[in-house]
Amino acid sequence: MFNKISIIGCGLIGSSILRAASKKKASKLIHVYDKSKDTASFLKDKKICENVANDISSVVKDADLIIIASPLSSYKEIFLSIKDSINKETIITDTGSVKKEANKTIQGFNLKNVSWIGSHPIAGTEESGPQAGFAELFENRWCIISPGENAKKDDVKKVKKFWELIGSKTKIMSFEEHDQILSLTSHLPHAIAYNVVRSAVKQEDKFKDEVIKYSAGGLRDFTRIASSNPIMWRDIFIDNSENILKVLDSFTSNLEEMKKAIREKNSNKLIEIFSSTKDIRKEIVKAGQETDEPDFGRKKI
Amino acid sequence: MFNKISIIGCGLIGSSILRAASKKKASKLIHVYDKSKDTASFLKDKKICENVANDISSVVKDADLIIIASPLSSYKEIFLSIKDSINKETIITDTGSVKKEANKTIQGFNLKNVSWIGSHPIAGTEESGPQAGFAELFENRWCIISPGENAKKDDVKKVKKFWELIGSKTKIMSFEEHDQILSLTSHLPHAIAYNVVRSAVKQEDKFKDEVIKYSAGGLRDFTRIASSNPIMWRDIFIDNSENILKVLDSFTSNLEEMKKAIREKNSNKLIEIFSSTKDIRKEIVKAGQETDEPDFGRKKI
Repeated sequence: MFNKISIIGCGLIGSSILRAASKKKASKLIHVYDKSKDTASFLKDKKICENVANDISSVVKDADLIIIASPLSSYKEIFLSIKDSINKETIITDTGSVKKEANKTIQGFNLKNVSWIGSHPIAGTEESGPQAGFAELFENRWCIISPGENAKKDDVKKVKKFWELIGSKTKIMSFEEHDQILSLTSHLPHAIAYNVVRSAVKQEDKFKDEVIKYSAGGLRDFTRIASSNPIMWRDIFIDNSENILKVLDSFTSNLEEMKKAIREKNSNKLIEIFSSTKDIRKEIVKAGQETDEPDFGRKKI
Repeated sequence: MFNKISIIGCGLIGSSILRAASKKKASKLIHVYDKSKDTASFLKDKKICENVANDISSVVKDADLIIIASPLSSYKEIFLSIKDSINKETIITDTGSVKKEANKTIQGFNLKNVSWIGSHPIAGTEESGPQAGFAELFENRWCIISPGENAKKDDVKKVKKFWELIGSKTKIMSFEEHDQILSLTSHLPHAIAYNVVRSAVKQEDKFKDEVIKYSAGGLRDFTRIASSNPIMWRDIFIDNSENILKVLDSFTSNLEEMKKAIREKNSNKLIEIFSSTKDIRKEIVKAGQETDEPDFGRKKI
């Protein structure tokens, strides 16, 4: 499919792409760069990849497809390091959870001969690092593809085929639409989960041990969401701040409405609130989006 | 173990107790009352219980153990109906999710010869009704037992043994402590989940279909929590309003702190927030409260 794929950043997502692309023979060569020496050693020691280099220029040289699987906040530095080493027509894609800001950054480099085509595989686990990756991570998961304005149509097809080869379902979407939808389906639930856990468990609280012991009543599964990679989430909340603040404001007014109903012991209003969400669940089940096991968009390992 | 158990209310929880108590031979006789004719017919037709009566007095007559498995808002009416039919020393327990208010209601009846011992099995599914019940619902789940002030010690032991017989782990706790802990581990997460779903999916929204389609990124599992029995949750929020409002206020100030950090793109503060919850998760895992599959305290059917 490709002659040389270069993967920049080889944590959970990057190393899963590496494993999946190797398994599915997506490319003759796969070269990997990660700024962490531990990651590089791990990939070599475990024989997951032979071509791990600590020189980012040599890794991207002659690549047909460059995949950035690093935190959003590292994009600028990465592009500064690779821009002069891209020596042929190539496709650059990424795996970031926010698209509009990343697109601005990348377009700013005005790279010639490059098709910039953003990707966002909606997949992950609560673990981080290359040891947590596995080839099946993307199977049956959505990957949203957002082509930059100068991306060649054929290259968009190639990126789509690549994700499908490693098991994903794909959907093409604009950067803006992606960021708005993800602010609702993923960023809002995560923001809220962090605050639920912080509110329920205070380190000095006299009930702390009991709260942990009886956490199966709902709280436990919020701690699962609220334990993902802090750097990744910081970058998401900064890059998608406008959409996230908008939905958090809407959340706050819904919560205030509920608090008012509780204070006033307004039985009808509470029933109305608790009933209103049942239909949405029915639609999710109808849309085939339900699984037997809730997993917060994270595959079990 | 008992000569006659009476179960008042036979939805998901009541019918699961019925099934489990029959299976484990907890009593020579089990009599059931449910105000719904459909429920009564279902239990008879499916041969789940032979002794289903529509006369609540005859159901509680001569019972050693009366189990109220009805919504909290029905307790007053139930006690008015049964108080003159309790004709011997008996134990009354319940399955309600809030204890302090129910205790007030029940103590108000000043029943002689009765050991009032509240129970709260922390178990359930997202389904309601007798057809959703099953004997294994309580297996390996906590049941919190809160004895009334006049409960006999031997009777507390009997209630404890009963729940253990049908598979539960038990813990004795005061009414007040129960309500505070549950406001943190269960009522807070549920309140928040309803508001997350309401905020993410608005009926008129242009993104509604996309939000449902990509809901696996976190939202989907909140809809699971936000689809339980509205009557049950209305009663919980009214009966435990004081504790719930307190924790919701704490939640609001945590959320405002996060919103401020997002608005200011305060990188350090965001990292601090996202890192703070990781340790709590570790403690939950350490306390043996983690499962392979998140289930929001609900057993898979």
